[in-house]
Amino acid sequence: MTSSSLSRTESLSLLTLSAACVAILCNVFEGDDKPLIVSLALSGLAFCATFALIRWLGPTFIKAGFKGVDLSKHNRREIPECMGAVCASVYLFAMIVFVPFAFYKDVVAATSGGGNRDVVLQVEHVQEGRFLHRFPHSKLSSYLSAIVSLHTIASLGLADDLFDIRWRHKFFIPAFAAIPLLVVYRVDFGVTSIVVPIHLQPYLGQLVDLGALYYVYMAAVAIFSPNSINILAGINGIEVTQSIVIAALLALNDALYLLTPYPHPATDSHLFSLSFLLPFLGVSCALLCHNWYPARVFVGDTYCYFAGMVFVVVSILGHFSKTLILLLLPQIFNFVYSAPQLFGLVPCPRHRLPRFNARSGLLEPSVTPWTEARQPRAPIAWGLRLLGKLRLLRVVLDGEGRFVETSNFTLLNLWLVWRGPLREDRLAAEITAAQVVVGVMGLFVRHSLASLVFLEDNWSIH
Amino acid sequence: MTSSSLSRTESLSLLTLSAACVAILCNVFEGDDKPLIVSLALSGLAFCATFALIRWLGPTFIKAGFKGVDLSKHNRREIPECMGAVCASVYLFAMIVFVPFAFYKDVVAATSGGGNRDVVLQVEHVQEGRFLHRFPHSKLSSYLSAIVSLHTIASLGLADDLFDIRWRHKFFIPAFAAIPLLVVYRVDFGVTSIVVPIHLQPYLGQLVDLGALYYVYMAAVAIFSPNSINILAGINGIEVTQSIVIAALLALNDALYLLTPYPHPATDSHLFSLSFLLPFLGVSCALLCHNWYPARVFVGDTYCYFAGMVFVVVSILGHFSKTLILLLLPQIFNFVYSAPQLFGLVPCPRHRLPRFNARSGLLEPSVTPWTEARQPRAPIAWGLRLLGKLRLLRVVLDGEGRFVETSNFTLLNLWLVWRGPLREDRLAAEITAAQVVVGVMGLFVRHSLASLVFLEDNWSIH
Repeated sequence: MTSSSLSRTESLSLLTLSAACVAILCNVFEGDDKPLIVSLALSGLAFCATFALIRWLGPTFIKAGFKGVDLSKHNRREIPECMGAVCASVYLFAMIVFVPFAFYKDVVAATSGGGNRDVVLQVEHVQEGRFLHRFPHSKLSSYLSAIVSLHTIASLGLADDLFDIRWRHKFFIPAFAAIPLLVVYRVDFGVTSIVVPIHLQPYLGQLVDLGALYYVYMAAVAIFSPNSINILAGINGIEVTQSIVIAALLALNDALYLLTPYPHPATDSHLFSLSFLLPFLGVSCALLCHNWYPARVFVGDTYCYFAGMVFVVVSILGHFSKTLILLLLPQIFNFVYSAPQLFGLVPCPRHRLPRFNARSGLLEPSVTPWTEARQPRAPIAWGLRLLGKLRLLRVVLDGEGRFVETSNFTLLNLWLVWRGPLREDRLAAEITAAQVVVGVMGLFVRHSLASLVFLEDNWSIH
Repeated sequence: MTSSSLSRTESLSLLTLSAACVAILCNVFEGDDKPLIVSLALSGLAFCATFALIRWLGPTFIKAGFKGVDLSKHNRREIPECMGAVCASVYLFAMIVFVPFAFYKDVVAATSGGGNRDVVLQVEHVQEGRFLHRFPHSKLSSYLSAIVSLHTIASLGLADDLFDIRWRHKFFIPAFAAIPLLVVYRVDFGVTSIVVPIHLQPYLGQLVDLGALYYVYMAAVAIFSPNSINILAGINGIEVTQSIVIAALLALNDALYLLTPYPHPATDSHLFSLSFLLPFLGVSCALLCHNWYPARVFVGDTYCYFAGMVFVVVSILGHFSKTLILLLLPQIFNFVYSAPQLFGLVPCPRHRLPRFNARSGLLEPSVTPWTEARQPRAPIAWGLRLLGKLRLLRVVLDGEGRFVETSNFTLLNLWLVWRGPLREDRLAAEITAAQVVVGVMGLFVRHSLASLVFLEDNWSIH
């Protein structure tokens, strides 16, 4: 058995799972239209395909130049990089295959010339050209715009992995990828008002219409989400586990809406969202199997951008972009905390990932060294000392109060400052656990406490 | 000036053209909705962007491993490969930016709450959810499905350039890329009948409904078109010029419909088609500037697949997939002629491009050598001799009638058999001219002679 082939157990497990999923898909075509079941089955198939392809394609990727060295290991051998591209390809392929399933019943109803009265349709029957239609085109265009956005971000990620695009060039491209999303949002919903918290209503009224600003806000979310996943990275598995946690919590949020008695007005939005999240969870879990400590493959920027955009797509088209913000709190913290280095107030080395201590085998916070000649200017020195006192930074001073080194400004380093040296998988697990805790609290705030500051929840007005 | 920067003249020309295009775009937003003008302006911008990016990104591509050696030159230096990826990126980006322009008026009408009675809409006003809509979602979903298909094929092409995917693996993938197209075709038109020629009507009736077979036919076109562009390749510029000729003739065909008094029933389809073809012509012309003899860049499989799929998209969604077949006649001939080597009846060397004679500087037909030990079997030998007699193959026999060598089965080699050794640009120009002649004849047949075998032309029944 070579490192690029599946073991007998793996082959058997994957084949069994695939066969089960195919059987489900075949049954669905005969029986009723159940997009959720189809989506689950496709997610299972996507998991199997991704798992096998990542294993098989390793040598091909290395040959094509997609390879990297794991700096946090004793044994520094080259492993395949950019395997997120496989995830993205399988995912997009699954979503395209899903199109006929998702619209199978609609297609039959729209083209059979009547007789299918059991299809619940919100549009009146439309006479268009020479043919009678009852097809939910708005649903299809939402769906397709999401695929276009995801495809665009996957290409951008791949280009970044191939060419190492400069930060300032690639930062805004997710906003362009979001254009189809925003057009569809505009024509399908066009809601740009936000509900004002009760305590502010005497001053601002019940609703504030943000107008074009709301689109700027959504574009900002589209820029932020992919980039924020991309900068909370650097140790095995962390990119994938944080994405799986966010996707799982978004799916949980969707499931909460689906548990209400049908037909809830938001059911369709959340079914839509689930149909994008489940295959994403499928391909991500397969990637995690290969990327968890000790990693046999790297995920590449492709995966980070792609994951971030999946969240943007479902939250904009599912109308819960504010819920997404709550789930991205650790990423937001990481970004804000990183700002001093990102914006050049503090020198930023090429790599800020935690430092591997070869003797102990543990990770320690990486540091920015300060020489005697090059000390921070007064206001920055004051800020660094303050952060040091607040235990938000490790600051090492010499006998005369000059800076010797400060830990780098990332959540991973900060966590190591707090918890002391940790093994790589332990650090990844703890950060993931923190993401889960913050996310669950975020959802709790969203659904329980929101009623304290808002008169009506989305549950009722959606 | 380095080879990767623009000359002063080039910079000035591109800036002038860009400025003119931007000025047009700004004016369009103020005045009426003219998607054709917007499309023209975007095509100009796409030309400028592609021209500059191909020049600038040369060293980056070479560094990333996208490089190749031109076998048909004295000076065999490495030049950037896969520049079709730049074309595809700029094109897709332009098409995404075009979305808001294309639907600007509709968005205004759909969301302004009435008052815009001047919008010609074929659908009745639809009450959907809580908002009054008059948005042509079916048009948007056609548009988006086209972008998804093109994005998929561009990714496939890139993967092929990166990983050299095996022929049998990649052959069918265009069919999957076409799924969104076919779904939209199904719900928007669903016409699967073909008109029977007059002389056959007594036996078959006026219309024959092909049903599911029609979708198989469209999938076959989707597989054939990208692959057929890809195999008529091997000399500088030929991939691009054949694509430009086909795109220009399709645009001419569209223009014929637009010249009829508005509102012709097919106007919208052909406007749609033009809005996809014009930016394609823009990026292709920019690529040709760098790829024409002597080539400074190669186009890669990405370009060939992408070009082929653009034709599939416009012809399926514009309902003239049969017209496309007429324009692809040289490619069809090349494919059929290549079949003996593609299917292994005759040995197929790795490269079949014409042989460069370093002494004369001209191209000659490349050959498959036959040894005494390895002679073709009887039926194949008979076929080769027949082709040789028909001047469809150069056959060299030794004194005892044994095969020494036969020219390779490609249109380029056949042309060299007919015309004798030619310089590379001369060969490309002659093949392109042949493509123009055949294409114009095809369109003439389509529009003039079709009335002899069909009672009604698409002109009247759409």
